[in-house]
This record gives sequence, C-alpha cells and structure tokens, in this order.
Amino acid sequence: MTAGGQSWTAGLFRDHEIAERFSDDALFASFSRFERALISGLAKAGLITREDAEDLIDQIADFEPDGAAIVEAGIRDGVPVPDYIRQLRAHVSGPAKGMLHHGATSQDLMDTATVEALVSVNGILGQRIETLLGQLSGLSARDGGNTLQAITRMQPAIPFQAADRIASWRRPLQSLYDRMPALSEKIGLLQLGGAVGDLQDLGDNAETVAGIMSGELGLRWPGQSWHTDRSPVLAQANWLSELTGALGKIGQDVALMALRGHDDIQLVGGGASSAMPHKQNPVTAERLVALARYNATLLAGMHHAQLHEMERSGAAWMLEWMILPQMCETAGVSLTAASALIDSIKEMGKTA
Amino acid sequence: MTAGGQSWTAGLFRDHEIAERFSDDALFASFSRFERALISGLAKAGLITREDAEDLIDQIADFEPDGAAIVEAGIRDGVPVPDYIRQLRAHVSGPAKGMLHHGATSQDLMDTATVEALVSVNGILGQRIETLLGQLSGLSARDGGNTLQAITRMQPAIPFQAADRIASWRRPLQSLYDRMPALSEKIGLLQLGGAVGDLQDLGDNAETVAGIMSGELGLRWPGQSWHTDRSPVLAQANWLSELTGALGKIGQDVALMALRGHDDIQLVGGGASSAMPHKQNPVTAERLVALARYNATLLAGMHHAQLHEMERSGAAWMLEWMILPQMCETAGVSLTAASALIDSIKEMGKTA
Amino acid sequence: MTAGGQSWTAGLFRDHEIAERFSDDALFASFSRFERALISGLAKAGLITREDAEDLIDQIADFEPDGAAIVEAGIRDGVPVPDYIRQLRAHVSGPAKGMLHHGATSQDLMDTATVEALVSVNGILGQRIETLLGQLSGLSARDGGNTLQAITRMQPAIPFQAADRIASWRRPLQSLYDRMPALSEKIGLLQLGGAVGDLQDLGDNAETVAGIMSGELGLRWPGQSWHTDRSPVLAQANWLSELTGALGKIGQDVALMALRGHDDIQLVGGGASSAMPHKQNPVTAERLVALARYNATLLAGMHHAQLHEMERSGAAWMLEWMILPQMCETAGVSLTAASALIDSIKEMGKTA
Amino acid sequence: MTAGGQSWTAGLFRDHEIAERFSDDALFASFSRFERALISGLAKAGLITREDAEDLIDQIADFEPDGAAIVEAGIRDGVPVPDYIRQLRAHVSGPAKGMLHHGATSQDLMDTATVEALVSVNGILGQRIETLLGQLSGLSARDGGNTLQAITRMQPAIPFQAADRIASWRRPLQSLYDRMPALSEKIGLLQLGGAVGDLQDLGDNAETVAGIMSGELGLRWPGQSWHTDRSPVLAQANWLSELTGALGKIGQDVALMALRGHDDIQLVGGGASSAMPHKQNPVTAERLVALARYNATLLAGMHHAQLHEMERSGAAWMLEWMILPQMCETAGVSLTAASALIDSIKEMGKTA
Repeated sequence: MTAGGQSWTAGLFRDHEIAERFSDDALFASFSRFERALISGLAKAGLITREDAEDLIDQIADFEPDGAAIVEAGIRDGVPVPDYIRQLRAHVSGPAKGMLHHGATSQDLMDTATVEALVSVNGILGQRIETLLGQLSGLSARDGGNTLQAITRMQPAIPFQAADRIASWRRPLQSLYDRMPALSEKIGLLQLGGAVGDLQDLGDNAETVAGIMSGELGLRWPGQSWHTDRSPVLAQANWLSELTGALGKIGQDVALMALRGHDDIQLVGGGASSAMPHKQNPVTAERLVALARYNATLLAGMHHAQLHEMERSGAAWMLEWMILPQMCETAGVSLTAASALIDSIKEMGKTA
Repeated sequence: MTAGGQSWTAGLFRDHEIAERFSDDALFASFSRFERALISGLAKAGLITREDAEDLIDQIADFEPDGAAIVEAGIRDGVPVPDYIRQLRAHVSGPAKGMLHHGATSQDLMDTATVEALVSVNGILGQRIETLLGQLSGLSARDGGNTLQAITRMQPAIPFQAADRIASWRRPLQSLYDRMPALSEKIGLLQLGGAVGDLQDLGDNAETVAGIMSGELGLRWPGQSWHTDRSPVLAQANWLSELTGALGKIGQDVALMALRGHDDIQLVGGGASSAMPHKQNPVTAERLVALARYNATLLAGMHHAQLHEMERSGAAWMLEWMILPQMCETAGVSLTAASALIDSIKEMGKTA
Repeated sequence: MTAGGQSWTAGLFRDHEIAERFSDDALFASFSRFERALISGLAKAGLITREDAEDLIDQIADFEPDGAAIVEAGIRDGVPVPDYIRQLRAHVSGPAKGMLHHGATSQDLMDTATVEALVSVNGILGQRIETLLGQLSGLSARDGGNTLQAITRMQPAIPFQAADRIASWRRPLQSLYDRMPALSEKIGLLQLGGAVGDLQDLGDNAETVAGIMSGELGLRWPGQSWHTDRSPVLAQANWLSELTGALGKIGQDVALMALRGHDDIQLVGGGASSAMPHKQNPVTAERLVALARYNATLLAGMHHAQLHEMERSGAAWMLEWMILPQMCETAGVSLTAASALIDSIKEMGKTA
Repeated sequence: MTAGGQSWTAGLFRDHEIAERFSDDALFASFSRFERALISGLAKAGLITREDAEDLIDQIADFEPDGAAIVEAGIRDGVPVPDYIRQLRAHVSGPAKGMLHHGATSQDLMDTATVEALVSVNGILGQRIETLLGQLSGLSARDGGNTLQAITRMQPAIPFQAADRIASWRRPLQSLYDRMPALSEKIGLLQLGGAVGDLQDLGDNAETVAGIMSGELGLRWPGQSWHTDRSPVLAQANWLSELTGALGKIGQDVALMALRGHDDIQLVGGGASSAMPHKQNPVTAERLVALARYNATLLAGMHHAQLHEMERSGAAWMLEWMILPQMCETAGVSLTAASALIDSIKEMGKTA
C-alpha cells in the first residue's frame, strides 16, 4: 500500500489500473498537455507568433520533469504545479519563454488533470459495467426461469423467478451506465481561471484561449472558471457511490442467499476457513458490501470539501484529493469483484 | 422539537413549511390519492365496473383516518400503511370493496408519497432559490463595482471586483436551479410493484393500471417497480447536499469577510454577545456553514441506505425516512437563512 | 416532528423523555442554576456581600423568562443567552445587580447546560441498560441451554448454545454500562472561561468562584475553561454510537435469525404487511439496525465540529447542537426498542 | 500509492512508518508469535509435551511464508490466515504437528495482529505527541507574552496573550496523551475464541492456554473472545479522530491567523504559488484541517462496522481493515505536519 510496506488488504479495495490514472506520470502528462494547449491558445490570440508557439510546444513536449523534486515540493507548496512550472521554465528557451503558463494558475492545471483522470477512469468503469451487464443477462438467460423465494423485510414473502431478482440487480446498473454520457458532460470541463478565477491576465483574449484549449484537450469550456464550484467532481463522486451501492446490494443479496442455502444459490470457489474446512464463505459478496459502505462513508467527505474559503481553499482541495481517487478505485475494484461473483454462481434459484 | 419539550435549536435547522410536506396529513392525503388512482386503473383494466369504481373512489375520498391509531400501529408494523388500509377497508362498502389496494403493497404507497412530498418540497425550494438569485443579482448591481481583495489559500492574492466573488456564489446556485427539471424527471416516479415488486397480482393489467395511475397522479411510470433501486431519492439527497454546500460556501466567505473587516463587508443586525456588547457576530453566515456540514454528514447515511436486503429492507428504508426529510428541511432553512444574510449586507467591498 | 405537522416517523427515532432534557425549560433552568451559583461564587470571593448575594439569588430563582422572545433572539444571536441575560437584568434589582453574569459568557452557560442535560440523559440511559441487561440474563436463563447454529461469514459454522450468542450481545452492553462512571467523570465539567476563555474578568478570584460554582452544581472544575476543547461532548457521542452499535448488532442478529426460521428464533407481535397477511416482520430488529446506522452517520458530524475557529466557532457549535441531542434520543429509543424486542422473543434456539 | 503508479498525494496523507506496522511483514510476524504462544499454551495445558512444543515453536520461528501466495489467497478467502496456516502446516513436522493452530481460528490471529499493530503505532504516536507538546511549550516560552487579538465567532473580541491560545492548543493534546495508558488497556487484548468464539475446542484448557498466550504476547486476556465486540478498535478510532481534530484546530487557527496578518503570526517557508510569486501560503495548516476532516469522515465507517452478523461478519471486518490503518496513518502524518508547522512559526502575536 505504501513504500513503508505492502499490505495484502490493498487487494481488497485498491485498483491498480484505476490508480494509474491518478499517478504522477498521468498528472505530469496532463500538465504538459495543458501547457501546450495554452501556448496554442495564446498563439491564436496573437500573443505569441505561430512559429514561436510551435517551438515552445515542442520543447514542452520534450520536457521530462524531475518527479522526485516535484513530489517533495508539492508537500511544501500544497500543490505540485509551482515546482513543475519552475522546472519547465528552466527547460525551455526562446522568445516566447516568458509566455509559458501565462494567465494560468496551479488550480487550472490540477483541476484539468483531475478531469482528464476521471474521463479516463470512466472509460474503464464503463467497459466493466458493460461486461457485468452482459454477465447478468447471461445469468438470467440460464437461471432466470428458476423459482426463488422472494424475501421482504427479512421474511419469506411469496415465490417468484430468479429473473426477477436478477432484473432488480441489473436495472440500477443499466441506469448508471445510461447516465454516463450526461456524467461525462458534467465533468468534462476545462478549468481555466488564472490567479483568482477571473481570467484577468488574459483579458479580452480569454475566450479565444479557452476555446482553443478546450478543443485541443477534448474538453468543454463552460464560459468561466469553476475554481470553487466543485459540482463536476461531486457529480462523479455521487455517481461512484451509487454504483458501489448498486453492487453492494448484489453482494448483500448473494450473502443472504448463501446463508439461506442451496435452494437460493450455489457458489463455487468461496473462501476457505482456517478452523472449519467444510465452509465456503461468500467472501466476494461480503467484500461488495464493505466497498459500498466504504464509498458511502467517503462521500460525506467530498461534500464537506465543497466549502472552499473565498477564491481557493487548500484545505477543501486536499480533502478532495485524499478521497476522490479512492472512490474511483473502490468503484473499479467493486466491478471486478462483482464480475467474479456472478461468474462464481453455479446455480441461482431452484429448477421448477 | 418533540412533544417532550420544545427546543429553541429547532429554529436553527428545522423548516416548518418543508416539514409539513412530510407530515401525517400530507402522507394520508397521498395514500388516499394513490388508492383512488389505483381504483381508476383497475376500472380501466376492466377489473371493476366504472360505476363501482366511482362509488369506491368517493368513499375513499370521504375517509378520515384515525391518525393516532395509525401512528401507533406504524411503529409496530414498521410502516403506517397496513393500519391505514385496515381502517379504510372498514370504512368502505359495496361490490368493489374487495378490490381495494388490489395488487399494491405498503411500499407502493410509501414511496409514492415520498415522491409527492419531494416534488412539493422542490416547488418551495425552487421559489426560494429564485428569490436568492434575484438578491445576488441585486447585490452585484449595487456593490459589484467595489474593489475586493481576492483571497486564495488564506492569503491575499490580488484585488478584483465584488462582482467576481458574487458571481462565484451565484453560478452554482443557478446551475442547481437549472438542474431542477432533470431532478424532477428523476424523482417524479410512480412506485408500483405489489408484494415483491414483480406486479404479479396485476398480471397483464399492470401496464394499464400503472398508466392510469401515473396520469392521475402526475407522475411518470418507469415501466417497473423501483422498490430496491433508491436512485430517485439519492438524486434528491445529492442535490440537496450540493445546494446546502453552495450556500455554506457563501456563509463561509461572509464569515471570513466579517473577520477581515469593513473593507470586505459590512453587515447589519449581527448577533449580540452576552459578555461583549461591542460585537456583531456573523451568526447567520456561521449557520449556513453548520447546515452545509449537517447535510454533508447526513448524505452518507442515505448512501448506506442503498443496501436493501433482497426485495425490501425495513432497516434501509427506515434509515432513509430518518434522514431524507431532515435533509430537505436543512436545505429549506439554509435558503431562508441565505436570503436573510444577503439582505443584511450593508456594503460589500470598498468603493473604488 | 415539528410545529409544521407531526410525522409518525418521529416515533421511530425520537425519544420524548430524552428530548425533554434538551428542552428550553431544561435549558432555562440550567441558566438559572448557573447564574445563582455564580453569584454564590462572587460572594465567596468577596465581590458581593453575603446579604446582597442571597437577595439576588432569590430574585434569579423567581425569574420566569419570556421563552418566545428568547427563542426568536436566539436565532438572531446564534445563542439564546444574551436575551436571557437581558431579560434577567431587567428583572433583578438591588446593589449587586451589576454583578449579574459577571465574568461569564454565553458559552459558559450553554456548555454547562449541555453538560447538565447529558448527565440527566445518562441517568435515563443507565436505567434502561440495567433493564435490558436483566432481560438478557432472563432470556439466557430461559433459553440459554437451547441449541443454536453458529454462523460465521454468512455460513453455518458449528452448533453452540443460545447462551453463547446472548452472551455476545450482553457483554458489550455490560461493558458500556461499566464505563458510565468514567464517562460521567469526563463530561461532568463546569464550563467557565469568560469572554475569551481566560477568565480575565475574574482574575485572582477565578479559582474561588469556580470552586463554589462546581460544588453547587455538582460538577467538576477542570482548572480552566474548555471552550474549544470538545472532548467531553465527543466522549458522550462516541459512547452513544457504540451503544447504538451494540444494540444494532442485536437487531441485525435477530433479523437474520428470523430469516433463518423457527429453529433460530420465534418472535411474537411482529409487523403486519398490507399485502401479505401471513407475514410477521421483525420490524423492531430492523429498526435497531437503522438507528445504529443513524448514529454512526451522525457521529462524523460531531467530529467535524471539533474544528472551532480561534476562541469560539458558532459554526462548529451549532453543528454540535444539531447533532448531539439527536444522538442521545437515538440511543434512548434504541434501548426502549431493544427491550421490546427481547420481550418479543418467544423462543430462541431449539430445545436440545 | 499503489503498484499501479505512485501519486505525490500519498505524501499528504500517508505515513510510511505507521503503514509498516500494518504491512504483511508485520502481520506474518504477529501470526508467528501467535502460533508459537499457542503452542506454549497447549503445552502448559498438557496437550503437547514440553519437548515437542519447543521443537514445534522452533520450526514456526524458522518458517518463511510465501507472501505472494498468501496475498492472492487472502483475497479469495477474505482473510490471509487460511493460506498462512496451510503453508505453515506444510513446513512443520513432528509428533505435535497436529496441534498447530489447535483451538484457534483466523479471527484470533487477525485481531491479535491488529492489536499488536495498534500498540506499536501508539508507541510512535506517543513519541510524536511528546515532541509536539515540547514544541508548544517552547513556543509559549518564547512568544507567550506577546499580545494577540482573541477572536470569537469570527469577530475580534478582546486582546489576550499568545500564551492563552497556545494553551488552548496544548491542553487537548496533553489530555489525549494522558489518556494513552487507558487506551492501551482497552486495546491491548489477546483475541482467542476459536471457530465461533466459545473456545469449545479448548474446553477446560481455555483459561490456561489464554493465560500463557497473553503473558507471552504482552497482552491482556479479557476472559473471553471479543470477536463481535469491536470496542477495542473503536476506542482507538475515536481517539485517533480526536487527535487529528485537536491538530486540525491548530491548523485552522494558524490559517486564520495567517489570513489576519503579521500581528497574529509570521510563518517561514510557506507554500509557493505558480501564478503569484509574492504569496506564502499556510499549506501545512490547511493540510491539518484536511486531515482532521478526513479522519472525522472515516470514523463513521468504523462505527458502521460494528454491525457484525452473528458470530463473524466478513463485510464489517473488511470495512474495518480498509479504514483503521488509514486513520492511524492520518494521525501519524498529522503529528509530523503539526510539528513542522509549529517549527515554521517565526513569531506569534505582537510584542507588547
């Protein structure tokens, strides 16, 4: 989990593929894209010649930051951008050098990088949801006609079909999947505001610069900075916790079905016990419940992080950084676990 | 706050107008509407004659429940519907009496009543947001040209205009307001599933019945029950916490501006101190912060309440009932407080 | 729930007897005790003659505040003390009148009143825990020898005795009960600090005054004010959530045993269903789970409320007021519900 | 942060030294100690000869587990113990081999390892608190006599001394430090319960075995298993969040003082800005606030994790594993940051 020593528990709630999207490598690549797009925008606005801009962009593309120094400075500065820019300034040369980072501020780079990470994460999550939806359809095709005891308020109600319960698992997932384009629309925003969010250094050129930048980065320009309006990241966090909640409900049900026995569900490859060799514990189902509760818990922190002081709050922002990537990882690992769980169902319900 | 003794603190975080939407009177009125719409639907489906239906609907409309008995039974049953229906059954007569509540279950009435309450609440909140948006525009028109010290990370950055900070307050509110139609679309759903959510007692008539009911109730029929899919109430809860977060940010800023002094803000009618007569505390600003953190805290509980066991979980459902109305009240009282706060601003920023 | 309209849900999570301890009547009675004890202390310190003090104390005792006016002013001032003191000042007369409230501040009265409410609440909770412990002992005496299937990780493990599971319910409660004297020690503190917590208006007399006051109020004087050190209220909140957690675990188990069937547990008087007359839902068990999760959720808010700004934060303090009484009520109603649940157990386990 | 790619943010809220206490290396070392102590206990109880026990203990001491295999199996089994024991069984030989792990279960090893990790963590935290207390005393000795504007409810109240505010920071920390022995008493418990917590496999020998084990491991034996009673870990979690809360309050104050300016505080080495070279942001102060809110948020999850189903809940247990180590790291890194912050204070208050 950390350089200080690996823990096996990382496997329970961490997701390497997702984590990579928030890695320093990904971050610095975003910074580089941002600074290059900015130079393009400044050129379009006539603040740099086309030639100088192309030269500067090439130099930025060639830049390889000293990550260790940035990490160290990042703790001191509360943000890794100042040292990245310092290094980048030392790296570039030429007449347009003074225009590097012109009109932008740390938050513009950080938030845009977060946006890019989230878009990339959602690509992964979307594929995993598709896979899971397919598995649920397959399960329903195979076992859906089986009889199952419907349970309400922890008591047997009346029998229905396995397909009914599977459909109740599938619908929220389908709906979360269907919401992804709208989610992308909400989060896929260029951040650009300059020192205090009013774009004053860019003046009349702000729209031109932002237009070019958003085009190059494949993001939307909402017309002004959203420095202290965290609704894009909240939209993501809300959606993530709804996703892990929907998966946790599947886990909860499977664990309860496993408790009720083989007329409800038969699983293969459950967890072993050190003291009771006869047991097959529904550990993946339990894990989905734990992950759902983990994200539900973390979500509160994201909403507390709305309270930015004035034009920028390091306290609120850092809280967001501590939580949001973890919520993404939790969602990622939940989907993987859910797929494994569905795969492990030998039979659901009882052949009529 | 309770029958056991009023507390002045209710005034800090309770909202009577909002609370009324969740009152027993409102609940029983919803139940009545639901049962009448159901009879209409059953008549349309040919399960009751039109005449018998009209007679039964009139009887339901005339019914005055014994609220105290329902409340008492509600604790025992974990839901107030069974005793309401028992009383209603005793009240009605005629050939169609046996079709009362046919095909429906407690959750159908409860969730539909919750939806109706939320729609009504959002009407109130929407009007209050409009008022507040108008006030912010007025404030900007009056003081927007004043100079203000922009603050980032708790340090003076560079000067900008009061209009810039006011715009940063106004934008998230405008955006939350603009999202209200989509929110209504998400929450305005008829709940209808019958005992275990599969509408089995209505069989082929389900669509007909649901179509009539949703039309009469002014709700949308999503094509199946959403008993264990809590995404509609989560959409509301998420939005409410974003709303109180946006208002809390205003409170936070005003409190900090009050700390910095009269070049930032002058308030009238601040709070008195028992020990220091010279003080004018920005108590409404502080309250907005407290309310934002209260809702951020509660939101986690709503997300934990996603984990319904099988076809219906009393535990998850009750948790939702404990929290959701409070979140609505918190939002309501935050808006009222924010309006009062903006009204109390004598001057923001310094005349240039 | 509010003046705007009662809701039956209040019965699920409110506790009138506990709420009364936080009522305005209780609050004003605390204020009166505080102000009288303060006068005694000032007399002991020689700042008022014994005679004048006795006269003033009698007048304070006779004072009947205009509650409605205080409530209204409380919202404006963010605390009800200033108007209470204003009214009290208008009520009293005589040479020592000027010494009323001398050296104290709003927070001294508010926090001391909270402490007195908590002490009183804990008296109620302690008695209810005793009752419940007795019931669990009785249940174990009656059914403890029955065989029960032990369940680990949602799978049958090996059989054991009903007494074993009952003991696992009883131990944490006994332990929480045994911790109550230490808890009382932590929370039973006089608050006295004056305007900014340094007791500067009392100077060398502070110890004398505090000594007399703590003696008269039956509280402990920790040697200085604890205005911004919320550890006493946190100790209470932590303990409350542990209590509802221990009760929620009982609820969880009973609900699961009810799901597994009559070899595990037989309940009488379960909840009725509007659609399925055969059902007996373990609704009180479910409620204990909901209440545990409610308090677990709220606890986070109490810990956020630690972050007082400088010498006093209205934002943090108000958040505490919104949450702490509710956590007490949740604990109170959980204990009542747990007693009802244990009483409803007809048989636990299977006669060997 | 993960194998998938380092993130600089790990430096904001991770603590390598603390994390190591929860590493697999530490875990396996705990497992080894547990199993050796168990053999000693079984020997004392006469179930193994002294000689065979010594031989077996030596073999356990020599065992080097295949960590990668355990990690992989741990995800499948939901706990790493079964594979550890499987490997260990394959490693040992001799007549007493069959007694390996006798009477114990996965949870006994896991919870005891958690206890050992917490004891070790608290050793680190205790030293850091001592350091910080010393720094605060030093700061008070140097600047305590300076005049400072006391602030209540975000408004200037009256002047007092820097020593007064420093004392309000120091007292809760001193109190948290003074509570550490009692905390150790609460958490320093041997876990031993066997498969379902009733120690049935050890029968009459349970007390003897537990007595020897607790002695060898330096832990207390509470007389029975505490499998589903999470109060020891909750005591730790509550204390951790109170600790980070107390440090967050210091951070909050320093950030506000930095906002108010040099009459309040002068810091050296603040954070740089990429857009405004003149700024010195109080980033470490902000970080303390973020860390306090992070732990306050996480604490709710620990309290939700109280609701173990029956004799063992994988879902609740895994949630605990996801959260508790992080809360320890948050506390560790907060203390380090607080020390750095105090060191960076050039002057607090204004020379009279």
